[in-house]
Amino acid sequence: MSINEQSLAYGSSKSRIREIAAYGAARKAEIGVDKVFDFSLGNPSIPAPDDVRKSIERLVAMPAAKLHSYTPASGLPEVRASIAQSINKRFAVESTELYGSDSLAEANDLYMTCGAAASITITLGALCNPGDEVMVVAPYFPEYRVWIESSQATCVEVMADSSSFQLDIAALRSALNENTKALIINSPNNPTGVVYSRESLVELAALLTEHSEKTGNTVYLIADEPYRELVYGGAEVPWLPGIYANTIVCYSYSKSLSLPGERIGWVLVSPRCAEHDQLVAAVAGAGRKLGFVCAPALFQRVIADCVDLEPNVEAYEHNRQLLMEGLGKLGYEFVEPQGAFYLWMKALEPDADAFFEKARELELLPVPSDSFGCPGWVRIGYCVDAQTIEGSMDAWAQLMESYR
Amino acid sequence: MSINEQSLAYGSSKSRIREIAAYGAARKAEIGVDKVFDFSLGNPSIPAPDDVRKSIERLVAMPAAKLHSYTPASGLPEVRASIAQSINKRFAVESTELYGSDSLAEANDLYMTCGAAASITITLGALCNPGDEVMVVAPYFPEYRVWIESSQATCVEVMADSSSFQLDIAALRSALNENTKALIINSPNNPTGVVYSRESLVELAALLTEHSEKTGNTVYLIADEPYRELVYGGAEVPWLPGIYANTIVCYSYSKSLSLPGERIGWVLVSPRCAEHDQLVAAVAGAGRKLGFVCAPALFQRVIADCVDLEPNVEAYEHNRQLLMEGLGKLGYEFVEPQGAFYLWMKALEPDADAFFEKARELELLPVPSDSFGCPGWVRIGYCVDAQTIEGSMDAWAQLMESYR
Repeated sequence: MSINEQSLAYGSSKSRIREIAAYGAARKAEIGVDKVFDFSLGNPSIPAPDDVRKSIERLVAMPAAKLHSYTPASGLPEVRASIAQSINKRFAVESTELYGSDSLAEANDLYMTCGAAASITITLGALCNPGDEVMVVAPYFPEYRVWIESSQATCVEVMADSSSFQLDIAALRSALNENTKALIINSPNNPTGVVYSRESLVELAALLTEHSEKTGNTVYLIADEPYRELVYGGAEVPWLPGIYANTIVCYSYSKSLSLPGERIGWVLVSPRCAEHDQLVAAVAGAGRKLGFVCAPALFQRVIADCVDLEPNVEAYEHNRQLLMEGLGKLGYEFVEPQGAFYLWMKALEPDADAFFEKARELELLPVPSDSFGCPGWVRIGYCVDAQTIEGSMDAWAQLMESYR
Repeated sequence: MSINEQSLAYGSSKSRIREIAAYGAARKAEIGVDKVFDFSLGNPSIPAPDDVRKSIERLVAMPAAKLHSYTPASGLPEVRASIAQSINKRFAVESTELYGSDSLAEANDLYMTCGAAASITITLGALCNPGDEVMVVAPYFPEYRVWIESSQATCVEVMADSSSFQLDIAALRSALNENTKALIINSPNNPTGVVYSRESLVELAALLTEHSEKTGNTVYLIADEPYRELVYGGAEVPWLPGIYANTIVCYSYSKSLSLPGERIGWVLVSPRCAEHDQLVAAVAGAGRKLGFVCAPALFQRVIADCVDLEPNVEAYEHNRQLLMEGLGKLGYEFVEPQGAFYLWMKALEPDADAFFEKARELELLPVPSDSFGCPGWVRIGYCVDAQTIEGSMDAWAQLMESYR
């Protein structure tokens, strides 16, 4: 084989999620869309707000040579300034409480990206050297491993608490060592729907600070936050740069503005990062290395127009209620989701894949938990039509019955 | 230093082109836009065709959840099908002449990317292993070195013919060895404006075939072709998959449709590539590793609408004539550009940087050739207003005078 084996392997193996989604699509074509209950994908079912369309319509009246021109590699300065302003408006109290007003975000702390995946590969590319370890909290989004390994670092899985799926600080403490470069935190969490509590994050910050001081190696917190605005029941998503200085926030508008195909997001190097200026430069350098010339220009400008829009999560909230009530009544055990659009449910037998196969026979398509680095559960994505949830309840009842 | 040194280095050093452009912008603000003659950037001065605007306006009437949804990683099948059809319409004769009709491009040979830079990093990521060498023909676009090195391969510069700047087949023959994985060919060429002749490409194909057969190592041709449609005087840009089987074409609409900020292009794995199916998979795997989830969805659809548009190169042609006539009359020596929007001119002293400094004192801003891996020349980008060219002639005259 003369080509790159790792790329071949990553290109040949479909993710389990995509595999199930592909099966679902084929099955729908076979027996009808209303007969298959596909909960596999994390593609927003709420359309982008109408303001996005209005913004695009307004922007295309601009001179085209200017509108579609290269932007600076880090993004249009005015776009980054408006994002920084929006961040400060929402989180300044949290940051300044701890660090004073020089912790406010500025345009230069931000680097516009082609979405969250790019935000993370660029951040890892800025930080990691061969031999470094990057910790992830299992269950976790499986692409983390791909991105960590392609940054030549090692992916270290640390289990969350096995019933609440909150952070297990003792487990994180045991996993920390002199090679630990970073920890990826994803809250609201995919796949569990958990939002990490302020208390646990403060404890985590103390642990990382203590470790960094003891070893002299800074441990960075990579906050992957595409689901930040999708929360229910008033859950608080603490602003991590206000809790831990060495935080890099990776954001995307894929979920909050329902723009997953447009690939637009950013990296924020917290102003209080130990090596802030070097890190800002390294982020730009990593973007350059990976072939990201700039984030899509039109959508950079759309974001400036829509930066303060709050998503209308009513439809997801409704779905969440339907699922919790329906599955709860049937006797299923699950973690009450506080955010994102996933419900994390215990499989009815230890082998989640075997449970998935029985579910599949009843046309139910959740994602078994092994692909998230955790046995015995399934992820039910509720970014679907409410009818899919309502229509599925008979099948969930039969599935439960089959285990009695 | 705990962060990645290479990323820091790439982020800290600005490219010479960007550095001169930044100086030009500052200088214009200081003494007036009409007093500075900035020929540094390769940003198209012709606006995107009006059909692009019309396409966007039509598309935003689509249901937003569908329009902005994730696309398959390789791109929307219908978009790739329309691109394949357009390619076959234009180049089928060339391909089938050599290889028969099974050499026609299909949707599955194409992988949509975020522009040419992404096309190249993804292709290199699919091909290269540590220890591999990738050849470039100097003078060359300096980012090639960044992308080759970040793919863990070594960049090997092979000089073009020193007067015509066509391929130097003998030099390429000497540089080929058992570690050679690929050769990047950029025609029409940045920075020289040269279009490689069919004759030289056929000779090159024979050389690579002979070498591959002798050593058992396939040498891939990476055809970087963002300037394909920008040609003058009826210059022919031969279709490389019709000349050499193991060709991967990296394309972008940045120059042909004047959409550099939108980041949209593709990789074509020629159907006749030796390891075609594995290579297609490895391209997808490399895209996944680097964090490219999909190419921007809206612009994928715009491309399907505009796939057969021919750019109107009249303005560039006019600029090219103005420059050739003006500089020719003054006695400057240059390579007559057949394509792209660059004129490659001999500096009036061996040190191109020293020549640039004297030009800069007269408010002339070309790019000295050392940053392209070649001493003694400058690149004059003529993707500018015609007035900039006309207005610059007195200064070019003074510059010539100063050397007498």
